[in-house]
Amino acid sequence: MVYFNKKSIDKLEKIYRLNLINSCTGFKSANLIGSIDKDGNNNLAIFSSVTHLGSDPSLICFILRPKTEFRNTYDNILESRFFTINHINKDDIKDAHHTSAKYPKNISEFDKTNLEAVFLNEFIAPYVRSSKIKLGCKYLNEYTIKENSTILIVASIEEIYIENNILKDDGWLRLDEGGTVAINGLDGYVQTELIERFDYARPKK
Amino acid sequence: MVYFNKKSIDKLEKIYRLNLINSCTGFKSANLIGSIDKDGNNNLAIFSSVTHLGSDPSLICFILRPKTEFRNTYDNILESRFFTINHINKDDIKDAHHTSAKYPKNISEFDKTNLEAVFLNEFIAPYVRSSKIKLGCKYLNEYTIKENSTILIVASIEEIYIENNILKDDGWLRLDEGGTVAINGLDGYVQTELIERFDYARPKK
Repeated sequence: MVYFNKKSIDKLEKIYRLNLINSCTGFKSANLIGSIDKDGNNNLAIFSSVTHLGSDPSLICFILRPKTEFRNTYDNILESRFFTINHINKDDIKDAHHTSAKYPKNISEFDKTNLEAVFLNEFIAPYVRSSKIKLGCKYLNEYTIKENSTILIVASIEEIYIENNILKDDGWLRLDEGGTVAINGLDGYVQTELIERFDYARPKK
Repeated sequence: MVYFNKKSIDKLEKIYRLNLINSCTGFKSANLIGSIDKDGNNNLAIFSSVTHLGSDPSLICFILRPKTEFRNTYDNILESRFFTINHINKDDIKDAHHTSAKYPKNISEFDKTNLEAVFLNEFIAPYVRSSKIKLGCKYLNEYTIKENSTILIVASIEEIYIENNILKDDGWLRLDEGGTVAINGLDGYVQTELIERFDYARPKK
């Protein structure tokens, strides 16, 4: 086994440490967040930290890096209060990864990739047309994590679109059949295959 | 496409909604958290919300459900301040899932499964022997998410153990080669296969 302690981690070269620490917590969700500003400029950005927070009420959360020059998603969400979360499909990983490039606010990532914006029903923020699972979300609150100045955004799920075959009889979404990918570190994209589903675990006698 | 709005989500039967909302944010990390109380009782519990929080300093976070009768991991972490995060390998998914059964505090999940506790160096909390990527962590802070009374735990990475072949030259951990699984919903376990790694994204001219 390779061993790193705190001291040796702190001494690592920056990119090496970024790769190591970004991959050591396991696989991450792969989503595109769509947002819009008050002038109608669309923005699309990849996030690997979207996490389930609770089912009743239906809440999600994700982490934003410290406020920097490029924070279009954050600014847009504060302006319009609504945003979309779109699963990244394996056919779209190259374009999805490209949304992490730092474009100025007036440039839409929808124009710089093959990803297509679509507006559904009355929802104000843009969805990604090719995404097979789409969530419409509403900003509720944020928490500043003082240990490193990141921001945890808490949002409610307002609506969900799911391609038919993915939704099973008990409400479970079989993500491998939908082609949803997961992220490994900063830049690795994996496809998945279901091994097994288990019953609710009860103590052994 | 199947469509749910907020009203129809709220009306869903409880288990159906649990399955739907737990799987709609995408894949989740699959980790076992090892902890110990002041009397030396070990605890091991599965968590699907462990997330990278930052690389400099090296921080992780995860979400705990509202304080309930069974909160051994939380109590232990507050008592001893240290805990371990252990990647779940595909060979261990059945036992890992079983750690979600609600055992009283004096019963160790290590005794109810084939997972074996191992103490490494001077670290106070138990690691899972068969886990190929292990993190030793220190509790730093917690944030109560008032929207649903969950708790976000923030912790530093104090040490990392990695099986040799998983660590690549640039610090990246190739998780599919290590057999780390991801979680789909509450009870689905998937294996993965790398599709591609991309370069750092820069704006197109």
